[in-house]
Amino acid sequence: MRSWLPSANAVGSDFPVQNLPYGVFSHGKDAPRCGVAIGDRVLDLAALEADGLLPSGDAPVFSAPELNPFMERGPKIWAAVRARLTDLLRESGDGAVRQKEGRYLHPLAAVTLYLPFRVSEYTDFYAGKQHAFNVGTMFRGPENALPPNWLHIPIGYNGRASSVVVSGTDFHRPKGQLKAPDAEMPEFGPSKRLDIELEIGAVVGTGSGFGKPVSVAEADEMIFGYVLLNDWSARDIQAWEYQPLGPFQGKAFCTTISPWVVTRAALEPFRTSTPEREKTLLPYLEEPGPMLYDIDLEVALTPAGSDSETVVSRTNYGTMYYSAAQQLAHHSSSGCPMRTGDLLGSGTISGATPDSYGSLLEMSWGGKTPIELPGGVTRSFLEDGDRVTLRGHAQGKGYRIGFGDCTGRVLPARD
Amino acid sequence: MRSWLPSANAVGSDFPVQNLPYGVFSHGKDAPRCGVAIGDRVLDLAALEADGLLPSGDAPVFSAPELNPFMERGPKIWAAVRARLTDLLRESGDGAVRQKEGRYLHPLAAVTLYLPFRVSEYTDFYAGKQHAFNVGTMFRGPENALPPNWLHIPIGYNGRASSVVVSGTDFHRPKGQLKAPDAEMPEFGPSKRLDIELEIGAVVGTGSGFGKPVSVAEADEMIFGYVLLNDWSARDIQAWEYQPLGPFQGKAFCTTISPWVVTRAALEPFRTSTPEREKTLLPYLEEPGPMLYDIDLEVALTPAGSDSETVVSRTNYGTMYYSAAQQLAHHSSSGCPMRTGDLLGSGTISGATPDSYGSLLEMSWGGKTPIELPGGVTRSFLEDGDRVTLRGHAQGKGYRIGFGDCTGRVLPARD
Repeated sequence: MRSWLPSANAVGSDFPVQNLPYGVFSHGKDAPRCGVAIGDRVLDLAALEADGLLPSGDAPVFSAPELNPFMERGPKIWAAVRARLTDLLRESGDGAVRQKEGRYLHPLAAVTLYLPFRVSEYTDFYAGKQHAFNVGTMFRGPENALPPNWLHIPIGYNGRASSVVVSGTDFHRPKGQLKAPDAEMPEFGPSKRLDIELEIGAVVGTGSGFGKPVSVAEADEMIFGYVLLNDWSARDIQAWEYQPLGPFQGKAFCTTISPWVVTRAALEPFRTSTPEREKTLLPYLEEPGPMLYDIDLEVALTPAGSDSETVVSRTNYGTMYYSAAQQLAHHSSSGCPMRTGDLLGSGTISGATPDSYGSLLEMSWGGKTPIELPGGVTRSFLEDGDRVTLRGHAQGKGYRIGFGDCTGRVLPARD
Repeated sequence: MRSWLPSANAVGSDFPVQNLPYGVFSHGKDAPRCGVAIGDRVLDLAALEADGLLPSGDAPVFSAPELNPFMERGPKIWAAVRARLTDLLRESGDGAVRQKEGRYLHPLAAVTLYLPFRVSEYTDFYAGKQHAFNVGTMFRGPENALPPNWLHIPIGYNGRASSVVVSGTDFHRPKGQLKAPDAEMPEFGPSKRLDIELEIGAVVGTGSGFGKPVSVAEADEMIFGYVLLNDWSARDIQAWEYQPLGPFQGKAFCTTISPWVVTRAALEPFRTSTPEREKTLLPYLEEPGPMLYDIDLEVALTPAGSDSETVVSRTNYGTMYYSAAQQLAHHSSSGCPMRTGDLLGSGTISGATPDSYGSLLEMSWGGKTPIELPGGVTRSFLEDGDRVTLRGHAQGKGYRIGFGDCTGRVLPARD
């Protein structure tokens, strides 16, 4: 399938007509509203809806500065809108948008992008086995690397929704309590071990009730789509604070997501199964079918003072041990209500070799083997001025389903 | 100071004119709106505001079904409204309410109470030293009871805001993964070690910015008020899941708060200092003055099949090692943005002796010494049909500042 918009058919475009990811944008002095990325443009859904061209339900949803009202409408409306948008943007489809390009389409280069949805709550999981093994090996040795519950439970912790920002938001290096292993007292100062975590975030579209667990199949239906997610982490703050109740301020200062939510529908052709189980899962976590996705991922680092980036890692989302649907089912298993706008981070996605690891902690093995960048530059952890950009796409035949850049830059700690 | 409303002056009333706690109620078929408890009545703030009798700002805030819009207005408006309400309800004050009692006052017994504010995010701390020592002793022995960071950091974890409910909401016993120490595999089933946690919750009234830590003094000013909080806990789910990332489903099924938010202003006469520091705190955590409150607390248990309750614990909030202002300052220390409606649980409040412990885990010492109730009934953990009620008040001279009941009942696990 091709679009009548040439840029949507360009080789390597993240946003062909097969994708249609949702975001929130503004153009000029207009208020932020919902849009869809297509080629090098953004389609104004609020304008289309105002003109009666979208089957989005009784009351308008796309003039909101967040996708939440649309997501609340549920899977039938999601499917109807996607079908309609496909017809408006494909070759030989409905000509309504093509005939009024100036009203409905804006250049991506000319708009401002916002957080695509209001994050209700943010949960971060730990579902990458290689990552859990690497981190466990560094802290406890290879024999005890995986916690005893890891092969039974999709381990996760509640993160801080207020710290989730859209790609392009720079942030100050966090300060916090730091304690060297041989120091008697902690000190308060800027983190010296600032890191990234390459993740995919699942966006919950429809909720579950108080005291009403959902099955893995129901959980999959509740997921509206996926984003790239960088869970910036201060390893030294985390190391001193995390016992016994888990990560807190070491993970609370910034989490960056891509501006586009790629829908579950767009990723449907790329479903893939979780790896073979090493221990039989309890029935409530069994998957009725493939629920991971074959998404190629990369991490690019632009060191301070340089204009050129280096790809320091390449891996794939399909390596995860647990799917987002399994995580969501587990999240509801106690009766915990899940809501529209909940964001579930996959956990760091690390492949088998250092050039596929999803954090600097792993790439530099706790700082012992700094990674080498062009010009003799090395990094164990991030320095002020460094920029990190995540990218990802599912590769189809002749097209790809991309997420757009998920990028952020480290500013110096505030005085 | 006395009120012209006799029930507000009754001995033992939780709601004298010195208190004026805020909540959300509905009467008959009216929509939920904000109100203030006074004696055995609730004062309709939406009606007062509609009649132009409150200095609450330019746009109405009290017709909302949540206190968040009012809290966002900040401390100056809070003070102005409190002064005005005091004048309307005290003896020899403005007679506007007294002259139209039927319009402005409803019997508390005839209204429905709701969650008083929309919980933005919920964080639970661990600031009771006796509790931390008790739990640590059970798990690691008395020599290693307190984690090494405990005297330096107000330890906390992010909880699940969607599971916070108002007093009176019953809930089903949660299911989850359980693993006996000697079992090879976990099983999935109803929790067998269902517990309570007696806490005070601090309600954040005004927020802080992205990347902008606040001082302890600023944090104190941001706190709108306090509620009673029962963080129901499934100890067996928690024990198997919590390593390495902290509590998750064992704490995600229900947290109950009192329907009334007692303001910081009402508690002002009852300020008390945290205990002497055992280790010098880092400067960012130092308190400029007393920031705890002298609040007497009790836990009452009504076992299944009985109509009579037994008070099983009495303790005081003033025993905590860290204040809510210190916790809030720490919460923002990495730059984590805090928001209107954030709820910070104090951590379990346990005194020095078993009759002052704040959880059944401690009272029954992990199930080894069940507590005894009248009629030969014993409890180590909660059984289906059990009701637990928290109560609390600050005792003034001739009046008390009470919270109202914080109660909930355990229903059997769902099939």
